[in-house]
Amino acid sequence: MPERAAIVLLSGGLDSTTCLAMAKDQGFSPLYTLAFDYGQRHRHELTAAEKLSRSFGAKEHRVMKIDLRQFGGSSLTADIAVPKDRSDAQMGAGVPITYVPARNTIFLSYALAWAEVRNCDHVYIGVNALDYSGYPDCRPEFVESFQRTARLGTTRSEFTIHAPLVHLTKAQIIRLGVSLNVDYGQTHSCYDPSPEGLACGHCDSCLLRKKGFAEAGVADPTRYV
Amino acid sequence: MPERAAIVLLSGGLDSTTCLAMAKDQGFSPLYTLAFDYGQRHRHELTAAEKLSRSFGAKEHRVMKIDLRQFGGSSLTADIAVPKDRSDAQMGAGVPITYVPARNTIFLSYALAWAEVRNCDHVYIGVNALDYSGYPDCRPEFVESFQRTARLGTTRSEFTIHAPLVHLTKAQIIRLGVSLNVDYGQTHSCYDPSPEGLACGHCDSCLLRKKGFAEAGVADPTRYV
Repeated sequence: MPERAAIVLLSGGLDSTTCLAMAKDQGFSPLYTLAFDYGQRHRHELTAAEKLSRSFGAKEHRVMKIDLRQFGGSSLTADIAVPKDRSDAQMGAGVPITYVPARNTIFLSYALAWAEVRNCDHVYIGVNALDYSGYPDCRPEFVESFQRTARLGTTRSEFTIHAPLVHLTKAQIIRLGVSLNVDYGQTHSCYDPSPEGLACGHCDSCLLRKKGFAEAGVADPTRYV
Repeated sequence: MPERAAIVLLSGGLDSTTCLAMAKDQGFSPLYTLAFDYGQRHRHELTAAEKLSRSFGAKEHRVMKIDLRQFGGSSLTADIAVPKDRSDAQMGAGVPITYVPARNTIFLSYALAWAEVRNCDHVYIGVNALDYSGYPDCRPEFVESFQRTARLGTTRSEFTIHAPLVHLTKAQIIRLGVSLNVDYGQTHSCYDPSPEGLACGHCDSCLLRKKGFAEAGVADPTRYV
């Protein structure tokens, strides 16, 4: 079987780590992992991403530094409070303040550049349209359109974006990851962790994650403050 | 008339400067200009872009630092010689070594992020499909596909990419710019200038520019070594 390389966008969170496990399970090799230092409020997820890349045997892990703070506009990069303890209805209404402008477009563009240099046709991204319906760049039609744009804009006419989580619930993602032996205790999802990296338990990301473990009937290994 | 802001991708070269003049002529205001420090071999075009932005009265000029050298793969960013004195046939054959992987995809992604934060729906890019047919990300079908992706991936459903030079020859671009009083002596196109910023006169970019002035019947204001 010819070598099939894949690049996995790896934030160090629950979704992207499940994608990494899936890419490995599906026989892609070598695996390259790509994280972004985009002016997040904390570095715990970058540390998690690096460790997870190693533990899955990726050939190379890159951290691209991109300064989205220059543009502002999101509570994840600007000096805006991270919302806490929101209801499902609140989370589902409109584009959340944690949305980072054009983030996945920028992330996929870098993955595309790296794919082109590595002669690689496969990129995994852990976007999810169910839990985060408010993020326009997590919808399948966005991913498909980016793939088309990428094929037109590069020398890689077979370039394929794998978004295997796009229609799964958080509970389904967790069950899938558990079946692939993902250690979710090593992943980091919280938008607003303590200085030691403990999850706040109250931001949108913590609430969705908690609910996911509960619905999956899987013990939540997250360390909360 | 309501205010119509536009972002102009401004490299400081002949094409992007003509785009800036066109955006101004078409009544867009305020104008924002965006340049990229992407590990080019020299900084003369960044200096040119900043001066040109000021001279056209742009409200804001940003230089995004993006590290495409990490990926390598192009003579414009990696340690590969810039080709000189190539014939038209050589220039027209295949993807040139000066192609930077996914460059316009990355540039447009940043423009999109800034557009979203500024509530702006218009981006100008000076891509040209005739003179640089070897660059896949200069083709109109790429630009159209990116626009579609951008509308799907952001909150800006009216986002529009203006690529007014896409079907023009270099001579037509120069004549258009001259009619809009562009001072081409202030623009920088050379891939491999002298330390003082004088154009080499022999790289693909210099050759196309020279030929453009000759065909347009306009005196070439470029300072060559």
